[in-house]
Amino acid sequence: MGCFMLKIVKLSFLYDFYGQLLTEKQQKSFELYHNYDLSLGEIAENLNITRQAVYDNLKRAESSLDYYEKKMKLADIFLKKQEQLSKIEKQILEYRNKAIDNQDKQLIEILDCIWNIIQELSID
Amino acid sequence: MGCFMLKIVKLSFLYDFYGQLLTEKQQKSFELYHNYDLSLGEIAENLNITRQAVYDNLKRAESSLDYYEKKMKLADIFLKKQEQLSKIEKQILEYRNKAIDNQDKQLIEILDCIWNIIQELSID
Repeated sequence: MGCFMLKIVKLSFLYDFYGQLLTEKQQKSFELYHNYDLSLGEIAENLNITRQAVYDNLKRAESSLDYYEKKMKLADIFLKKQEQLSKIEKQILEYRNKAIDNQDKQLIEILDCIWNIIQELSID
Repeated sequence: MGCFMLKIVKLSFLYDFYGQLLTEKQQKSFELYHNYDLSLGEIAENLNITRQAVYDNLKRAESSLDYYEKKMKLADIFLKKQEQLSKIEKQILEYRNKAIDNQDKQLIEILDCIWNIIQELSID
């Protein structure tokens, strides 16, 4: 992925965590630009503000998102947790496959139960 | 617990999540007041500011912490996740006790492995 695309993906990811902390105008500009793919001119028309104001909203939104991540590291922590969850899931699947081979119904049931509770953890 | 104590506990809890977003002076006032149990007068002397400024810092810190929780609900989400983790742990322990009764060494090993990975999830 190119550097520009990476930045866009990263910003959208950060927006999931900190979007609520942006001003309403920043949120609207950000969403129209990143989720609806509108141009600065189209957003300006939509929000009834100048093109420069849209540009400023986007720039301020970006720097706020970076600032919040630097302070709180929520996205970073989230990714680490997801990694740990995948590790557990992988381990459970491995045990489950062995249990299937051994036709160990009790173990399959136990692993499925733990699996289901863990799935709840992945949902925010 | 009294209402005042509950408020204090809640604020300290919220501070763990959002303290980084407060100004440096708010952080210092908050910590000296809540963690070191200093009086407003003592904090004022320590930070070389007026007693009124300390009071304002504390009040602004409190309302900021409430504001951030209202927007982001991190403390709320954290408590729910901890509840789910406890649920998994309880379930694993239950299975483990049964496995001990049945002298099922393989199952004990599997459960211990899952347990250990889950412990990593509880650490922030």
